[in-house]
Amino acid sequence: MPTYCVFCNIVAGKEPANIIYEDDEIIVIQNILRWVPVMLLAMTKQHTTQAELWTYHMGKVAPIAAEIGRQLCPGGFRLLSNFGYDAMQSQEHGHLHILGGTFLGHYVG
Amino acid sequence: MPTYCVFCNIVAGKEPANIIYEDDEIIVIQNILRWVPVMLLAMTKQHTTQAELWTYHMGKVAPIAAEIGRQLCPGGFRLLSNFGYDAMQSQEHGHLHILGGTFLGHYVG
Repeated sequence: MPTYCVFCNIVAGKEPANIIYEDDEIIVIQNILRWVPVMLLAMTKQHTTQAELWTYHMGKVAPIAAEIGRQLCPGGFRLLSNFGYDAMQSQEHGHLHILGGTFLGHYVG
Repeated sequence: MPTYCVFCNIVAGKEPANIIYEDDEIIVIQNILRWVPVMLLAMTKQHTTQAELWTYHMGKVAPIAAEIGRQLCPGGFRLLSNFGYDAMQSQEHGHLHILGGTFLGHYVG
């Protein structure tokens, strides 16, 4: 059976999301988490694993994420992806976090 | 005057580092910090800003970092870059952290 993917459903317009950027291949949405003021997710519209995102698509996703971070977070920002259990990856659909809007502290817990 | 860059000096062989991967354009070194068991830094040998790394070079750096993470961190890993003060960026030479080898906790402090 196909598995449920919230990001694919957002891309398909079946679930709501605040879309920050969109083109034919890439979408950037607001995270439903609110840990920091700017908390966005950049990804390919196509369902990929985290490894596929970083192996094949970062040449397109990375510049978009860096530019959005620059525009929205003049004090600085963090771009990151979590792979697997040790990094607390919770969604299979590969995604890059854009985090900022406050002092972020350390990048490991 | 030219400013001092420890990463450029490592690339030039003027300072020691544990080199994990190297090709004509990219180098991956062990971080001198030891917050987590696997703590590496991937970067271009050419001095770039963090924005330049993410705008022009992630198509090459990202796949290498993801593959090294996969090989060294079977339990999972985190790939990230810090931009500016709010993210605690301490070195101008653009670099991507490869973090793993233990449960990493959250990605903001």
